[in-house]
Amino acid sequence: METNTNTTLQTVITPEELLAQWQGHRNLTRRVIEAFTEKDLFNFSIGGMRPFSEMVVELLAIAAPGIKEIVTGKTAAFNEDINHENKKAKLLELWDKTTEDINTYWAQIKPEQFHDTIKSFGEYEGTVWSSIFYFIDNEIHHRGQAYVYLRALNIEPPFFYER
Amino acid sequence: METNTNTTLQTVITPEELLAQWQGHRNLTRRVIEAFTEKDLFNFSIGGMRPFSEMVVELLAIAAPGIKEIVTGKTAAFNEDINHENKKAKLLELWDKTTEDINTYWAQIKPEQFHDTIKSFGEYEGTVWSSIFYFIDNEIHHRGQAYVYLRALNIEPPFFYER
Repeated sequence: METNTNTTLQTVITPEELLAQWQGHRNLTRRVIEAFTEKDLFNFSIGGMRPFSEMVVELLAIAAPGIKEIVTGKTAAFNEDINHENKKAKLLELWDKTTEDINTYWAQIKPEQFHDTIKSFGEYEGTVWSSIFYFIDNEIHHRGQAYVYLRALNIEPPFFYER
Repeated sequence: METNTNTTLQTVITPEELLAQWQGHRNLTRRVIEAFTEKDLFNFSIGGMRPFSEMVVELLAIAAPGIKEIVTGKTAAFNEDINHENKKAKLLELWDKTTEDINTYWAQIKPEQFHDTIKSFGEYEGTVWSSIFYFIDNEIHHRGQAYVYLRALNIEPPFFYER
């Protein structure tokens, strides 16, 4: 085991590392969206669940608006009314826009803010850190479901460990 | 937004909070295991994937051994040869034993250790924090897949946000 040379870094994870972790996951999710045909992305489902496109809309409705709330302190209702025109290219465009928005807002989160209490979308109480972890965990959860959709469609999903 | 009164806590997440986050996820995964009938737990699958029992074995093979390595610095090969006797009760017993083992080993991780470089199971290079995040994320990923199995079996899975 190699000892960390920066002995002052007695922290589990830095804000920059958490951002990179999230964007790494989002990069993988982007490739999962790409792996679907347009038809299956918007139509295929198992066991009465939503097609993956609708889960992607949920993730888009959470990510940038969720971080924006944390930075501005201005609460907005959760809004999944996102115009994607039933097109994969449009969903990917919205995904990339969200990537930039997250980076922009993230740079404005203050380090001392992560333990503040907030109510995301005026509904979900937690700390800033637990809310952000929820955003990420929820994405991993739904992407895992998309892996089953892809396997059922006989499509090989991207490697989970490649971000 | 309520301001954090502990102004010295300028960290994203403490080791204690990360442990609680993981055990919260593990508590949910336990309820997902319980939701399956024994037969489906060990046999049901979609698209040529593993039954959920085999994913659970993977999670058991990662969790306590992974944390033990971090604490002891002694590497052991990844070993999924876990005797569960094809019984749900036995898997749950192993799950609960792992819960205790994680708590025991976790108490021995030093705060300055999270940015050390390690090679989990002699194979997977990363930092201590990124390895632990991988353990947790991988569990969320496979549990998300189990949700699809349950839905396909017409069984209502536990709420994702209840830990």
